[in-house]
Amino acid sequence: MTPPLAVAAIGGFHVGGRPFRVAGQPPRMAAFAPNGPTRPFDPNGDFMVGQMYVQYVRLAAPRSPRPLLLWHGGGMTGVTWEDTPDGRPGWQQLMLEAGHDVYVADATERGRASWFPYPGVMPGDPVLRPMQEMWATFRLGPPEAYPTRTPFPGQQFPVERLEALARQVVPRWPGNEAATLAAYEALLDRLGPAEIVAHSQGCGFALAAARGGPERVAACVLLEPSGAPDPATVDLAAAARVPHLAVWGDFFAASPVWQAYRAAFERYAAALRAAGGTVEILDLPAIGIRGNSHMLTMDGNSAEIAALVAEWLGRRPLAKVAAPL
Amino acid sequence: MTPPLAVAAIGGFHVGGRPFRVAGQPPRMAAFAPNGPTRPFDPNGDFMVGQMYVQYVRLAAPRSPRPLLLWHGGGMTGVTWEDTPDGRPGWQQLMLEAGHDVYVADATERGRASWFPYPGVMPGDPVLRPMQEMWATFRLGPPEAYPTRTPFPGQQFPVERLEALARQVVPRWPGNEAATLAAYEALLDRLGPAEIVAHSQGCGFALAAARGGPERVAACVLLEPSGAPDPATVDLAAAARVPHLAVWGDFFAASPVWQAYRAAFERYAAALRAAGGTVEILDLPAIGIRGNSHMLTMDGNSAEIAALVAEWLGRRPLAKVAAPL
Repeated sequence: MTPPLAVAAIGGFHVGGRPFRVAGQPPRMAAFAPNGPTRPFDPNGDFMVGQMYVQYVRLAAPRSPRPLLLWHGGGMTGVTWEDTPDGRPGWQQLMLEAGHDVYVADATERGRASWFPYPGVMPGDPVLRPMQEMWATFRLGPPEAYPTRTPFPGQQFPVERLEALARQVVPRWPGNEAATLAAYEALLDRLGPAEIVAHSQGCGFALAAARGGPERVAACVLLEPSGAPDPATVDLAAAARVPHLAVWGDFFAASPVWQAYRAAFERYAAALRAAGGTVEILDLPAIGIRGNSHMLTMDGNSAEIAALVAEWLGRRPLAKVAAPL
Repeated sequence: MTPPLAVAAIGGFHVGGRPFRVAGQPPRMAAFAPNGPTRPFDPNGDFMVGQMYVQYVRLAAPRSPRPLLLWHGGGMTGVTWEDTPDGRPGWQQLMLEAGHDVYVADATERGRASWFPYPGVMPGDPVLRPMQEMWATFRLGPPEAYPTRTPFPGQQFPVERLEALARQVVPRWPGNEAATLAAYEALLDRLGPAEIVAHSQGCGFALAAARGGPERVAACVLLEPSGAPDPATVDLAAAARVPHLAVWGDFFAASPVWQAYRAAFERYAAALRAAGGTVEILDLPAIGIRGNSHMLTMDGNSAEIAALVAEWLGRRPLAKVAAPL
């Protein structure tokens, strides 16, 4: 048993977004409560769109002076960092136990961040991941083995709990990245400089935030980043002052998509190092930790990986990171 | 300053839902990461639909032996119970401080519970509340005073933070109540008997759950219930063994909709009392607490109301409630 956490405050809030006005939509009739009367509902009026959601737990005596932000991946929400699909503690709790004030985000359009059901805001139609797609993209097993749920040998993800993962996924809008990044930047305006741990698609937003420099991002941990921009298209000068760590799981040989994402990240990392930056790589199989899927925070050894990341965050030269230009 | 909370565990999970298979949808091309490659996405396959989400905080030494479930209202999520729109602590933290293990729900279709973007699951099109509708329905001020944001005299809701409330609202599907109730029942199967504090539309689900008897619901607190079923259409025998408390705010004279909802609840309460049940009423203006809107958990005196509810929960005869049939 770990000792209880001494928690100073717990709650949540929204940041970012912009006003948006709807006009010209037809009113409709609807019953808004079980057994309630039907009444007219007018969808026209003033809204806020594009905001994101953050849930926070602040410790009474954090060991880290800066907030730790947990940014989920594509089609997911902050639930990524809560209980694993088979009910073990998630990284939210583990990072609290490691002494961090933890802020778990739901990106714009996902989960508690909300999305907009009337025309003019979201870019086209959303998609939702089927279990077949997750089986293949998250490197759980050979695509043709989905019907029998036969995973890769040594698979760490609890494949018998695939339905629990399917309950977590939410619709996403490809092409909505600019609004999402704007909301993450609003979050950093409020909380930065912060340490960020991002997963998959969330790493793209974390890399972009790190290009704002250490005044916004004190450390950038990338769990299986789904690619990175062409380094010739971005300015890496400020990012070179932010320590980066990338963590990779297993089973890349079976996934051309992930080979391409990883190669794109390696080009970015090489350019960042050439610009004077530090990018450490935690290649789990290379240090004898085998069997990890894309879902490092849910795999059977998720606590072991969390401890490695917490250890890396703890030995960062904080004074240097916090130094002004 | 309140002393730190001693927290044993924090996390979240999904419950309920059912498998659903999609077939015959056309594949599409999409880029799933910023700067990532475009790749084909096949929406056909296996999904889970209708589940709900629960975030929990368990104390090291809870004063109450049973979990406290917080069920939000229509168009909202569990954020109802987090920071108020003007940044004060929410009922989640206040009920933890009162010694309860707290479980905050996002009902089916809302927030982290997810919703389903392909045909065959959701009942028609969702609606989202404009600020004008919230201004009127939440009894913040006269409808015609929305443009100037001039509230009712003595209004407790922080109307200058209406945009913060607008960031919280999420789309809802009128007509999806059966799926929502099924998920709440799955939650009670896992956690009950539990104490429930519900708001607005959530009260309809809490009343239905209480009709399952004290083996599932140990106490039922209804913050501004949006009506209640015709008591002639339901069996109240088991609900009569569950203590109920309803809490009402101010400004009913200005709202025919709320007068109708309240009258429906009073008919239900009278029938429940006639069946041998107890339904206590906390009519805030009647005890000198004036100016409350429909959003009791966000009003300026939200902590005072939380304390009254916590006090009521604390003096319930727990042994009697927990007694078997």
